[in-house]
Amino acid sequence: MAQYRVLIDANDEKGLVHKVSSIFFNSDLNILSNSEFVDKENNKFFMRSVVDGDINKKELTDAIEAVLPNDSSVKVIEPKKKNIIIMATKELHALGDILIRHESGELEANILAVISNYDKLESLVTKFEIPYITVSHVDLDREAHESQVMQAIDQFEDIDYIVLAKYMRILTPTFVEAYENKIINIHHSFLPAFIGANPYKQAYDRGVKIIGATAHFVNNNLDEGPIIAQEIKHVDHAYSWRDMQRSGRDVEKIVLSRALKLALEDRIFVYANKTVIF
Amino acid sequence: MAQYRVLIDANDEKGLVHKVSSIFFNSDLNILSNSEFVDKENNKFFMRSVVDGDINKKELTDAIEAVLPNDSSVKVIEPKKKNIIIMATKELHALGDILIRHESGELEANILAVISNYDKLESLVTKFEIPYITVSHVDLDREAHESQVMQAIDQFEDIDYIVLAKYMRILTPTFVEAYENKIINIHHSFLPAFIGANPYKQAYDRGVKIIGATAHFVNNNLDEGPIIAQEIKHVDHAYSWRDMQRSGRDVEKIVLSRALKLALEDRIFVYANKTVIF
Amino acid sequence: MAQYRVLIDANDEKGLVHKVSSIFFNSDLNILSNSEFVDKENNKFFMRSVVDGDINKKELTDAIEAVLPNDSSVKVIEPKKKNIIIMATKELHALGDILIRHESGELEANILAVISNYDKLESLVTKFEIPYITVSHVDLDREAHESQVMQAIDQFEDIDYIVLAKYMRILTPTFVEAYENKIINIHHSFLPAFIGANPYKQAYDRGVKIIGATAHFVNNNLDEGPIIAQEIKHVDHAYSWRDMQRSGRDVEKIVLSRALKLALEDRIFVYANKTVIF
Amino acid sequence: MAQYRVLIDANDEKGLVHKVSSIFFNSDLNILSNSEFVDKENNKFFMRSVVDGDINKKELTDAIEAVLPNDSSVKVIEPKKKNIIIMATKELHALGDILIRHESGELEANILAVISNYDKLESLVTKFEIPYITVSHVDLDREAHESQVMQAIDQFEDIDYIVLAKYMRILTPTFVEAYENKIINIHHSFLPAFIGANPYKQAYDRGVKIIGATAHFVNNNLDEGPIIAQEIKHVDHAYSWRDMQRSGRDVEKIVLSRALKLALEDRIFVYANKTVIF
Repeated sequence: MAQYRVLIDANDEKGLVHKVSSIFFNSDLNILSNSEFVDKENNKFFMRSVVDGDINKKELTDAIEAVLPNDSSVKVIEPKKKNIIIMATKELHALGDILIRHESGELEANILAVISNYDKLESLVTKFEIPYITVSHVDLDREAHESQVMQAIDQFEDIDYIVLAKYMRILTPTFVEAYENKIINIHHSFLPAFIGANPYKQAYDRGVKIIGATAHFVNNNLDEGPIIAQEIKHVDHAYSWRDMQRSGRDVEKIVLSRALKLALEDRIFVYANKTVIF
Repeated sequence: MAQYRVLIDANDEKGLVHKVSSIFFNSDLNILSNSEFVDKENNKFFMRSVVDGDINKKELTDAIEAVLPNDSSVKVIEPKKKNIIIMATKELHALGDILIRHESGELEANILAVISNYDKLESLVTKFEIPYITVSHVDLDREAHESQVMQAIDQFEDIDYIVLAKYMRILTPTFVEAYENKIINIHHSFLPAFIGANPYKQAYDRGVKIIGATAHFVNNNLDEGPIIAQEIKHVDHAYSWRDMQRSGRDVEKIVLSRALKLALEDRIFVYANKTVIF
Repeated sequence: MAQYRVLIDANDEKGLVHKVSSIFFNSDLNILSNSEFVDKENNKFFMRSVVDGDINKKELTDAIEAVLPNDSSVKVIEPKKKNIIIMATKELHALGDILIRHESGELEANILAVISNYDKLESLVTKFEIPYITVSHVDLDREAHESQVMQAIDQFEDIDYIVLAKYMRILTPTFVEAYENKIINIHHSFLPAFIGANPYKQAYDRGVKIIGATAHFVNNNLDEGPIIAQEIKHVDHAYSWRDMQRSGRDVEKIVLSRALKLALEDRIFVYANKTVIF
Repeated sequence: MAQYRVLIDANDEKGLVHKVSSIFFNSDLNILSNSEFVDKENNKFFMRSVVDGDINKKELTDAIEAVLPNDSSVKVIEPKKKNIIIMATKELHALGDILIRHESGELEANILAVISNYDKLESLVTKFEIPYITVSHVDLDREAHESQVMQAIDQFEDIDYIVLAKYMRILTPTFVEAYENKIINIHHSFLPAFIGANPYKQAYDRGVKIIGATAHFVNNNLDEGPIIAQEIKHVDHAYSWRDMQRSGRDVEKIVLSRALKLALEDRIFVYANKTVIF
C-alpha cells in the first residue's frame, strides 16, 4: 500500500466530487485528506486528494480523466524527493535557510546545485557537499550570461523547480519560458507594492509602517507572476532603509521556504495568474 | 431553488464522501462548497457542504443518515437569522461591536435582548431598539441571581446562542448545562494562560510580550470550554496593565465577533472539548 | 499641577536633549515619559515629552524655543478633547467603530458632526445625538458639491481633525489645502499597492494572499499622503473580492481608529511626507 | 571617535535625564539614539543611549554614577563581538538559524562552542569550524551530567551568553545560578501556557487556534524566567500535534535569534522577573 496525491483541475460541472470519489471508492482507496475549490467566476474546479491504497497510477489517471469534462488535467503523484536548483547572488539568508531545512531532512527535495553569478556563497554551499557553480556576468551581455546559466542548469536532468533565493538579476523571457511555472522567486516587498529595484529604499521613502515579502512563480513580466505566499513585519519611523532590509530578511527567508514546501508537496495549482493552494 | 448547509459528524469509515456526494448528485443538488476533515486520532469524520437545489429537508436528512455509520449526526440547515441573547456587565466595546454589525446587517442574527447585572449599558442598547434587561446581583447569592437571569432568558423562545460580551460573573453548572454548546464567551487572555480573574494584571506581572483573547464555548470548568477563535497583540514593557486592558479590548471584540459569525454560519463542530471549523 | 505634552520638531544639533531637559528641570517639571528620534538622513530632531507640573504654557514654549535652532517648532499642549468632524458615505463599520469608542469615553474627542453625501447613516448617527448633515452630490459638479461640504464644515469652529470614515469621493486640492494635515483617511488597501478605485477588486484580480488597510493624512495626490498606521489580514484563493471587502472592514475600522487615537493624543509628527509616531 | 552604549538602571527621581544628558553634552558626546522608560509602579528608571565621541570609559561611568541615586547601575559598553556557547540536543532548526546568521556576519558574536548531550548535530556544526562537544547523559545522574557540562563550558573564558537552542534537559539551580541572566532559552510554547514537557501535545489536546514560542532568561523555576520575545502562528483543527511541532519550529528559531540579537546589542534590562527592551 502506498500514498498518492491526486490533483484535478477541470471546468466545473455538477457531480465532479461524486464521480471522482466513486472512483476512489471502487478502487478501494482510502481518502486521507480531500480539498476542493470551485472558482465560480471562472467556472473552474480544483481538487487535491491524498489517498492510500494499491493502485496502478496510469489506470487511476485514465479512470478519473474518463469521467471529467474535456480539457481537464489529472495528476497522480507518488510523493518523493523533487529535484531543485537554487540560484542566488550574494546574500545567504534565504539560501542558508533552505540548506538548513534540507540538512534537517524536512524538505522533500534533492538540491542538485546552487548557481550564482558570484563565488561569494561557495564556501557555505560546499560545506553541505552541494555543487556550486559560478557563472560570472562580468563582461557578458544579458543574453550571453543567461545562456551560460542555462547550460549550467541543463547539465542536470529532471529538474522540478528552480528556486531564486535572492538572485538579483532579471531573467529574459527565453529563460522564463524554458521553465514555465517551475521558477519560484522571493521578491523583497509586499507585491504589488514596490515592483522593481531596491524595494526597501522605495518603502522607506514612502514611509510605510509595514514591510513584506512575496514568493511567486516567475512569468514574463517582472514581479507579476502568480503569488504563492506573502508575509509582513511591522516597522516604524526609526527604521532606516538598511534596517528595513535587515529586518526584512527574516520575512523573506520564511516566505520563500514556505512557498518551496508548498510546491514540493504538490499543493499549488496555477491558473489565471493566480494560485489555488490546498 | 434554495441554499442549504449540510453538516455531518460521523465515525470515519471508507467511502463516506462517495456516499454523501452520491446522494447530492442523485438529488440534483449543486455543491457550492465542500469541506471535510478526518481526525485520525479519534476516527471522526466531519463534513460541511453548502448545496443549492430543490429538496425536502427531512428526506435529505434521512437519505444521508441511512448511508452513514450508527451514531452519526446529520443536520440540513436552511440559512436564516438565528436568535441570540447577549449578556454583558459594564464594558461596551464587545457589545458595541456586535450592535454595530447587527445594525449593518452583516450578522445572520436577531438580538432578542441584552441582559446585564448593571444598567450602565441600557442607554446604548435602547438606542438600537433592543430590549435591555437589568438583573441586579446586589443582595442576591449566586444561585438566586442566576435563577433570575434564567427567567429573563426563558421568556424568549428558540434561542440559538447566548453571547457573553464581557459578562463578568461566573456561571454555575446549572446554567451552563441548560444551554450546552450555546454559550459563547470572550476570555480576555490567550487561553490557557491566565485562567481566572484579571488576566491583564496577571499578564503584566508575568512580563509577557504578547496579549491575547480567546472566544470559546462555555462548559462547566471555568475558561476550559472548546476554543473557537484566538487573536493576539504585541505589547512591550511600556504597557501598564491598564494599557494592556485598553489595548486588549480591540482584540477581544474582533475575536468575539468572529466567533459569533462562525457560529451563526453553522461553521463550527464541537467534540472532544475542541472545535472543527470550516 | 497639570499634565502637558511638549512636542519639539527641530533641525538636529548636539545638546538638544540636554538643553530641553534642563528647562524641564529648572521649571520643576516631572517627566512622565520622553521619546526622541533623530532622522540622520534629513538631520531632523523630534521629541515628545509628557510632563507634570505648574507652568505657564507661553513661558515654557518661549523658554524652549530660545534654546533651539531657528525654524524649530515647539508646542506645549494641555490634553483636552479635540473637535472632530467625520465624513462618510454609506458604509457604517468605520463610522460605527468611532461612535462606539466615543460613547465609551475612550476617545479624547468631541464629534461635532457627521457629514455624508447620502442620508443612509443618519438613523445610526442621530441615535448618538450627533448632528448629521447630508450634502447630496446629485446634480452637482465636484466643485459645487465640495463647496457645500465646506460650508457645512465651516459652520463649526476650532476643528482639529476631519476623519474620512470611508468617504468615497475624491477631494480637490482646494479642500485638502484648506485643512492641511488635519484630514485623516482610511484607504482600503495596503498602500502603495492598489491606489485608486476598488482596491479589493484589484487585489483579488492580482491573487494576493494578504489584504490590508492604510490610515494616512490626505494631501493633494490621491492616496499618497503621510502614512499613520497599516494593518493586514491573510486571505486565500477561496476569497471572492466581496469576501475580501467584507473581511477587510475589520482591518479598516481598527486601523482608522488607531490612527485617530494617535492624532488625538498628539503623538504624530509629519514631515517629508512621512510620520514620526511616539 | 568611537561609539558607546550607555546603560543606566536607577531608582527614579526628578532630573535624571537632565543630569545624564548634561554629562553627555559636557563630554562633547553626540547622542545617536536615546531611550528612556520609567516604571512608575516600581519607581525605576531605565535609559539606553548610543553616543559617539572620544571618551575614557571609566571616567564617563564614574561621572554618571556621581549624579545618580545610590544603588544605580551604569554600564558604558564598547560594541564588540560577545562570546557565546550554544547548547542543543538533537533538533537543528534553532541552532542552524544561529549558525547561518553567524556565517553571514549579522551577529555580534563569536560562537565558542556547541555543547550537546548527543553527537547528532556534530556534522552540521563542524562544517562551520566551530568546536562541538558531546557530553552524553547516558548512565549519569542529572548532577553528574551537568557537572561535566559545566566543565566543558568553563574551559572557555569570558562567556557572555549561553544559548539553549532546544536543549531538552532541565537545568539544576546550581547551573542556573552560575550563569545568572546569561542563559537564554527558547520555550516551544506561548508562555505561561503549557509550561513543562511536550507543549505542542498539550496545545493540541487543548484545541488551541494559535501556537507560539517564548525566548526568556532562565532562572530557577522552570520556564518562569524573564521573557525577552514571543511570537505566534495560527493553526487550525487540521494540525496534528506533530504538525504543530513542525510548524512551530519556524516561530522558535525566529524568536530565539531575535532574543539573542537583542542581548548581543545590549538592549535588554532585567528586573522584577521582567525585561525592559530598547
